[in-house]
Amino acid sequence: MTEKQKIRVAVLGASGYTGGETLRLAVRHESMELLALTADRHAGESIEEVFPNLAGYKLPPLTKIDDVNFSQLDAVFCCLPHGATQEVVKALPESLRVIDLSADFRIRDPEVYAKWYGHQHYAPELQCNVAYGLTEYNRGELKKNRITACPGCYPTSALLPLLPIVSAGQIIVNDIIIDSKSGVSGAGRAATQAMLFSEVGEGLHAYNIGIHRHGPEIDQELSIAAKESVVANFTPHLVPMNRGILSTIYVRLAEGVGAEDLRKTLVRRYEDEPFVQVVGPGKSPATRHVRGSNKCLIGVFADRLPHRAILLCAIDNLVKGSSGQAIQNFNLVFGLPEVLALEQAPIFP
Amino acid sequence: MTEKQKIRVAVLGASGYTGGETLRLAVRHESMELLALTADRHAGESIEEVFPNLAGYKLPPLTKIDDVNFSQLDAVFCCLPHGATQEVVKALPESLRVIDLSADFRIRDPEVYAKWYGHQHYAPELQCNVAYGLTEYNRGELKKNRITACPGCYPTSALLPLLPIVSAGQIIVNDIIIDSKSGVSGAGRAATQAMLFSEVGEGLHAYNIGIHRHGPEIDQELSIAAKESVVANFTPHLVPMNRGILSTIYVRLAEGVGAEDLRKTLVRRYEDEPFVQVVGPGKSPATRHVRGSNKCLIGVFADRLPHRAILLCAIDNLVKGSSGQAIQNFNLVFGLPEVLALEQAPIFP
Amino acid sequence: MTEKQKIRVAVLGASGYTGGETLRLAVRHESMELLALTADRHAGESIEEVFPNLAGYKLPPLTKIDDVNFSQLDAVFCCLPHGATQEVVKALPESLRVIDLSADFRIRDPEVYAKWYGHQHYAPELQCNVAYGLTEYNRGELKKNRITACPGCYPTSALLPLLPIVSAGQIIVNDIIIDSKSGVSGAGRAATQAMLFSEVGEGLHAYNIGIHRHGPEIDQELSIAAKESVVANFTPHLVPMNRGILSTIYVRLAEGVGAEDLRKTLVRRYEDEPFVQVVGPGKSPATRHVRGSNKCLIGVFADRLPHRAILLCAIDNLVKGSSGQAIQNFNLVFGLPEVLALEQAPIFP
Amino acid sequence: MTEKQKIRVAVLGASGYTGGETLRLAVRHESMELLALTADRHAGESIEEVFPNLAGYKLPPLTKIDDVNFSQLDAVFCCLPHGATQEVVKALPESLRVIDLSADFRIRDPEVYAKWYGHQHYAPELQCNVAYGLTEYNRGELKKNRITACPGCYPTSALLPLLPIVSAGQIIVNDIIIDSKSGVSGAGRAATQAMLFSEVGEGLHAYNIGIHRHGPEIDQELSIAAKESVVANFTPHLVPMNRGILSTIYVRLAEGVGAEDLRKTLVRRYEDEPFVQVVGPGKSPATRHVRGSNKCLIGVFADRLPHRAILLCAIDNLVKGSSGQAIQNFNLVFGLPEVLALEQAPIFP
Repeated sequence: MTEKQKIRVAVLGASGYTGGETLRLAVRHESMELLALTADRHAGESIEEVFPNLAGYKLPPLTKIDDVNFSQLDAVFCCLPHGATQEVVKALPESLRVIDLSADFRIRDPEVYAKWYGHQHYAPELQCNVAYGLTEYNRGELKKNRITACPGCYPTSALLPLLPIVSAGQIIVNDIIIDSKSGVSGAGRAATQAMLFSEVGEGLHAYNIGIHRHGPEIDQELSIAAKESVVANFTPHLVPMNRGILSTIYVRLAEGVGAEDLRKTLVRRYEDEPFVQVVGPGKSPATRHVRGSNKCLIGVFADRLPHRAILLCAIDNLVKGSSGQAIQNFNLVFGLPEVLALEQAPIFP
Repeated sequence: MTEKQKIRVAVLGASGYTGGETLRLAVRHESMELLALTADRHAGESIEEVFPNLAGYKLPPLTKIDDVNFSQLDAVFCCLPHGATQEVVKALPESLRVIDLSADFRIRDPEVYAKWYGHQHYAPELQCNVAYGLTEYNRGELKKNRITACPGCYPTSALLPLLPIVSAGQIIVNDIIIDSKSGVSGAGRAATQAMLFSEVGEGLHAYNIGIHRHGPEIDQELSIAAKESVVANFTPHLVPMNRGILSTIYVRLAEGVGAEDLRKTLVRRYEDEPFVQVVGPGKSPATRHVRGSNKCLIGVFADRLPHRAILLCAIDNLVKGSSGQAIQNFNLVFGLPEVLALEQAPIFP
Repeated sequence: MTEKQKIRVAVLGASGYTGGETLRLAVRHESMELLALTADRHAGESIEEVFPNLAGYKLPPLTKIDDVNFSQLDAVFCCLPHGATQEVVKALPESLRVIDLSADFRIRDPEVYAKWYGHQHYAPELQCNVAYGLTEYNRGELKKNRITACPGCYPTSALLPLLPIVSAGQIIVNDIIIDSKSGVSGAGRAATQAMLFSEVGEGLHAYNIGIHRHGPEIDQELSIAAKESVVANFTPHLVPMNRGILSTIYVRLAEGVGAEDLRKTLVRRYEDEPFVQVVGPGKSPATRHVRGSNKCLIGVFADRLPHRAILLCAIDNLVKGSSGQAIQNFNLVFGLPEVLALEQAPIFP
Repeated sequence: MTEKQKIRVAVLGASGYTGGETLRLAVRHESMELLALTADRHAGESIEEVFPNLAGYKLPPLTKIDDVNFSQLDAVFCCLPHGATQEVVKALPESLRVIDLSADFRIRDPEVYAKWYGHQHYAPELQCNVAYGLTEYNRGELKKNRITACPGCYPTSALLPLLPIVSAGQIIVNDIIIDSKSGVSGAGRAATQAMLFSEVGEGLHAYNIGIHRHGPEIDQELSIAAKESVVANFTPHLVPMNRGILSTIYVRLAEGVGAEDLRKTLVRRYEDEPFVQVVGPGKSPATRHVRGSNKCLIGVFADRLPHRAILLCAIDNLVKGSSGQAIQNFNLVFGLPEVLALEQAPIFP
């Protein structure tokens, strides 16, 4: 493939963690040409000023969004903060494919969006051209629609184990408890006291209990799979590590279903998927075994409580939970092998 | 109080974490005299060889258990590995009070013990003189019985929030889910590959799912409170921090009960307790806010799922979860103020 | 001692780490009465809003500095940011003793101050009533002077091992290399991107090489001891831990001096000091063995390079490096036993 | 390149960290075919039993060394513990290229080896066919000699910044101080109490002061560059992170030389090297910016002490400090592009 034939992209919001992670993976992507990087407050700087780990890759300098020549591009990765993406996307040429890593287009119902995000959607007219980017579940829609709304990191870790068994009717959908634990990079790169090393190190707590915005996102997708309205418990915790999400999911089994049936459903569903693996009986997925990779590990256990089971799901929040899945979607949308730039092994220790 | 009047104690198993933590607290105890420390494999060494943080406190040298003159003692803290304590205690003079930090006397039913610990109890005849050392729930029995079986760290974090509401009949007892997260010191000081820094750092996983020995211990105490046989889910996770346990507990409310009712019950139950605090509405207990102290913080939240609530409990696994509670029990047993040597504020950051 | 006889104090700047640490220690101080806590941006809040670990100690609410009734006080601890203290102290009643934890009065030479801190001193007239608060070296001056300028954390870790051997003429003073490593709490509690957990975790770097403001502070005190002008290398590093400083100091020995001579000088100098310990030959001081305590551990090693030696010094940056030494100075100034409120053992693990 | 043309290799000692890291990189190597993995104590297990992060790569099962059919191989990576390699290599067919990651062939002088490693070399006759595998300095010798002795992690971080300026005569060679800080994975995967998470977390110390075996290795290579016998100070420290080494090196400048001259020498020396980068003036290399990659970052600073300068060098101890450099050497030895399998960007955060 010559330079000419590469897909020409910009990364908008390249100075945050999802932007940087998209670049980390993209610099090794053989069919992607990075033509523009934006970071309004860092315009004029080189990428290595904000991400020294990306020194030496001959990337374009950081610019303001307004200075990007979008007409020369095929696609953009939007790594902007929540709320900022809608207006930006509205202004882009319609010929551009948009891979959005923010939450701005994830919620299908504008009322739900307004309730949880605190304002009316700024570009509701675009919503009809959006597909939810949980790759393994939406390949057809993703190819057809212009905007890919990449899932939140927590929803990815909850939906991958839950969707097959919900679709199969194997669990009681109004009794799902999702206890999620995340590394700190999920909180983003903005300077806040609460995310200082000294505040977060050597400690653990739950946060946004009952009010985290990923709750309605999870509900939305579970409801589609269940073909009824589902509300799930979702309780996020902050763990003193940089990367990784582990979701421990407690489910009540449908009549006549055992934990081994869940396992069978999951194994069958994912046996041909390159990134999702069901670990063996008795094995417990660990975030350290997916670190830096697009892998998702799922474990299944019987509960000591009768008629209940436990699902475990480990991902790297910045890869399968964000930038890796974004690139997987990009590959899909442009007809490339899905694994391109995502094949490196997890880094341990 | 003169030297003479002090309670004379030995710490058996002083080279492990619970032993060292007992000493850290004991060196500031105004009514305790440390006369002997044992650590068979380190006999002849000074305590600072194994715990340099304890240098300078003029502690006795480490000896073998066999070399302790038990006749001069009033009490022993047993910080020996599980399984080793029964035979040791059997051989002690009956005049000695025993504060046992191991699991050896926690399980009341010898069949349950044998099933979960893999062997018949070596000293079943002693079990009739044992009280379960969850201090806040057993003061009368603790004073009366010779052996105090201090609770496991996880059970402490599960029982303190659950017992009052189970006793009050406010939750459905056969639908309790206890998702616990612990720092690594809970795994003890034995050299194992799985607990190396490089194995545990920057990662997270669940372990011993459905088979952790603290499960039946929790069940036992919940059953007593519920006056019926209770089995609870208990799922422990390992978090990359030294100290701290956070248990997130998902409960189904009894008919007509709301989360606020749980809160009221807990506030009332603990308002006069020196170490257990119910944090305010909307506050989330964090392990970092109890670090190094005997405090237990409990939070209560309504769940988004109807008829359900979420309890959170944070303790320092080595203090309220082990050595601190042991000293609290010691104080109680010997008629001292319960807070002696346990009054220092949590250390943050 | 009755309430009346207690020393009545305020902590100015109680919402930062040095303020919070001063409170953590002060709540256990039997001769100190905390009458006022200030934190301008948190005025009206309780201390547990900013330091949940301090819940339950019946501390006064946070106020603005302007709302403190200074006439009822005997002393203030100033835990304000560098640069803010001079004007505040200028406005205080002269009857108040001032224990200042900031850098504002540490530098004796106003030109050096202006050069390194970027502005003329705002209260040079007060400087004549200041003593440098390295307790072990200045007891007489500290008692006599109204303002105690507590040393920086890094200087404390460099000066305690160096001053005795510099005074004794045992090393070449213009060839001192101080390689210091600090936990992150030393950077304070202000929200900055560079100190986010995700930026600092799992990594290590040197910073402010050759330009850190603790450099001239170290030089100043070494010069006094050496009776000649000394410039020392000082290179600070940031380590992914909350607390602790380790300084590794490389020195060239004077003619005829060996590493063992340095050890002898240090042992002799500190044998009667309650907080400074010289560890045995071959032992390496570790920050984890002083955590949470006012201890300072010093080690001495011969270098493989002839005529050189290596000194190691471990302190807790927030205790002996800041709030603990402040309280030690407070005790000294008010004629109390120096160890009051500072006797708790280091917390490990 | 067809399967046939790939270089056929075995990894001996695949269950330790250097073995696992070699595999992590090797599974993405387009010209390497992994035919055998050994781990005597895990013989019969799959690699994912010991490295779950390597699940799914269709690697051969773990076997005993004795069960490897060496005749079908072109090369072996020896990731065995120090001391075990010499006898193993002695028994290998002479046709095999050996890339040794242990210390067994690094020391050229058998007397120095015996002194520092505690026994006579078991295969001194092989030493004449060894090249020291600091790739950038030994390409000719590496191609010619059968055995590549990959450097220690610390020596790599010390030699890359020092060798050019020593060769250029720009520093005084008998006054070099190397203060190194390493993540814990450098200590290997053997179960030892000292490397438990709870022992190492939240703390810092120096170890093996003056007696670390990487000292004579550094001396050896500096001496060759200096054309005189050099002894350098080398003081290693253990930092609570998984990966990374930062060496802070204090040097005395030769007459008429300034820090900028060192920078120029280093920039010129490394401008065509793919993995070694000299960071810009005022920039401080951080281990987090090389994590997971084969990069080496070097910084140069003037010292406040006259006639002195400070060098900083950051590498990932498991990549450029071990397995990455091993693969770089493998590539070189077999005439492949040096960067094969080593091109992925560092992972941050």
